[in-house]
Amino acid sequence: MMATKTLPAWRTKLQASLQRHEGVPFSKFFQLATIKPDGRPSNRTVVFRGFLEGTNDIQLVSDIRYNKVAEAARNPAAEVAWYFTDSREQYRLSGLLTMVGPDHENQALQDARAAVWRGMSDKARAQYLWPAPGAPKTGKEEMPQQPPPAADQPPLPTFCLSVLSVKEVDYYETNGQTRYKYSLDGSGDSWQELELNA
Amino acid sequence: MMATKTLPAWRTKLQASLQRHEGVPFSKFFQLATIKPDGRPSNRTVVFRGFLEGTNDIQLVSDIRYNKVAEAARNPAAEVAWYFTDSREQYRLSGLLTMVGPDHENQALQDARAAVWRGMSDKARAQYLWPAPGAPKTGKEEMPQQPPPAADQPPLPTFCLSVLSVKEVDYYETNGQTRYKYSLDGSGDSWQELELNA
Repeated sequence: MMATKTLPAWRTKLQASLQRHEGVPFSKFFQLATIKPDGRPSNRTVVFRGFLEGTNDIQLVSDIRYNKVAEAARNPAAEVAWYFTDSREQYRLSGLLTMVGPDHENQALQDARAAVWRGMSDKARAQYLWPAPGAPKTGKEEMPQQPPPAADQPPLPTFCLSVLSVKEVDYYETNGQTRYKYSLDGSGDSWQELELNA
Repeated sequence: MMATKTLPAWRTKLQASLQRHEGVPFSKFFQLATIKPDGRPSNRTVVFRGFLEGTNDIQLVSDIRYNKVAEAARNPAAEVAWYFTDSREQYRLSGLLTMVGPDHENQALQDARAAVWRGMSDKARAQYLWPAPGAPKTGKEEMPQQPPPAADQPPLPTFCLSVLSVKEVDYYETNGQTRYKYSLDGSGDSWQELELNA
C-alpha cells in the first residue's frame, strides 16, 4: 500500500476511461489472473470495487470458499487485464493480492472490508449465504431461509475483500496506437513512465 | 489436438453465445493468462480466430516479438477468461498453448497459420511489419514504406499462430445461476460434465 499524494498518470487515465464508460455497466468488470498451487494460471472475470482509500490499490470481493482465495494466500502474484470496449484501451495491472477475510488483523483493512460490504446490493450480499460456490452440486444443498443480512450488519464470515497492490501498469490504446509502461520505483514512492512501440 | 466427432457440450454453448453476440464485435475478444519466466502471471486481451479445423482447439494470433510467445514456449499452460456481456455468461478454458511460428515443422499447423493470415484485414497484416511491439520507443523507429503484404502471399516471419488445446472448461451463467465443469478424460476422447454450485 502506498499513500497517494498526486495520482499516478495511469490512474488518471483509468479514471477517465471509467468516466467515459459510465453508461456501460460491464466496463467495471476485468479479468484477474493468479497462479494455482500446481503452477498453472487461473483467470476469471471480477468486478471493480473502487480503490482502497488513500492508496492506488484496487479492491475486489470474493467468497472465501473460492479457489482464488486459497490460491492468492499461497502465491499473491496477480495480473489484471482490463479492456474498455468503446475507447479500445487496455490496462494490464500487475502486483500482489492481499486477501482480507474475517480474521485479518489490520483494522484499516477490516474497515475497508465493512465499507465495501455496505456498498453492495442485497442480492450480492445474499450470495454469501449460499451453498459453497464451485463445489459439485449434489441436489441436496439447502438454500438459506433467512433474508440477506442488512447492509449495516458486520460482513458475513464468507465475505473476503481482496486488495491488489499495483506495481506495474501497461497501457495500450488501440485506436491511436500509443503504449506506455508505468513502474513503481524501488522505494514505492514514485512512478516511472516509459513509452513503448505499439 | 483431438478430432471432433460430435461437438462437446461446452463448444455447442460457446457457439450459441457467439451467435447471440454476433452484432457485438468485442465479444470475440477474451483474456489469456500465461506464466512469465519468473513465475508471475501475465494477462492480456486477444482476439478469437476460430477453431483449428477438425478440432476443439482455439486459434489466436500474435507477433513473434511479443513476450507471450517466449513465455508460452517455456511454459505452455494457459487459461482463457471469456465473458459475454449480453448473456452474462463466462467461459474459463484451460489447456496448453502451441506457438506456430515460421519454423514450426507440422504442415497442418503451417496450413492453418497461412489460412488465418489470409483471413485477416490488410491493416492487421501490416502490423507485422512495424517496429518491435512492446520495445521502448526511441523515436528513431522507421515505419515500413512498403504496402502491407497481400493476403495470398505467405505469412510474414513475425506472424505467429497460437493454438490453445483445451483440457478443461468452467462455464458460468450469472442470470440463471448455473455452473458446469467439463473435463477431457485421460484418453483425450470424451468430455465429462459436472454441475457445480453457482
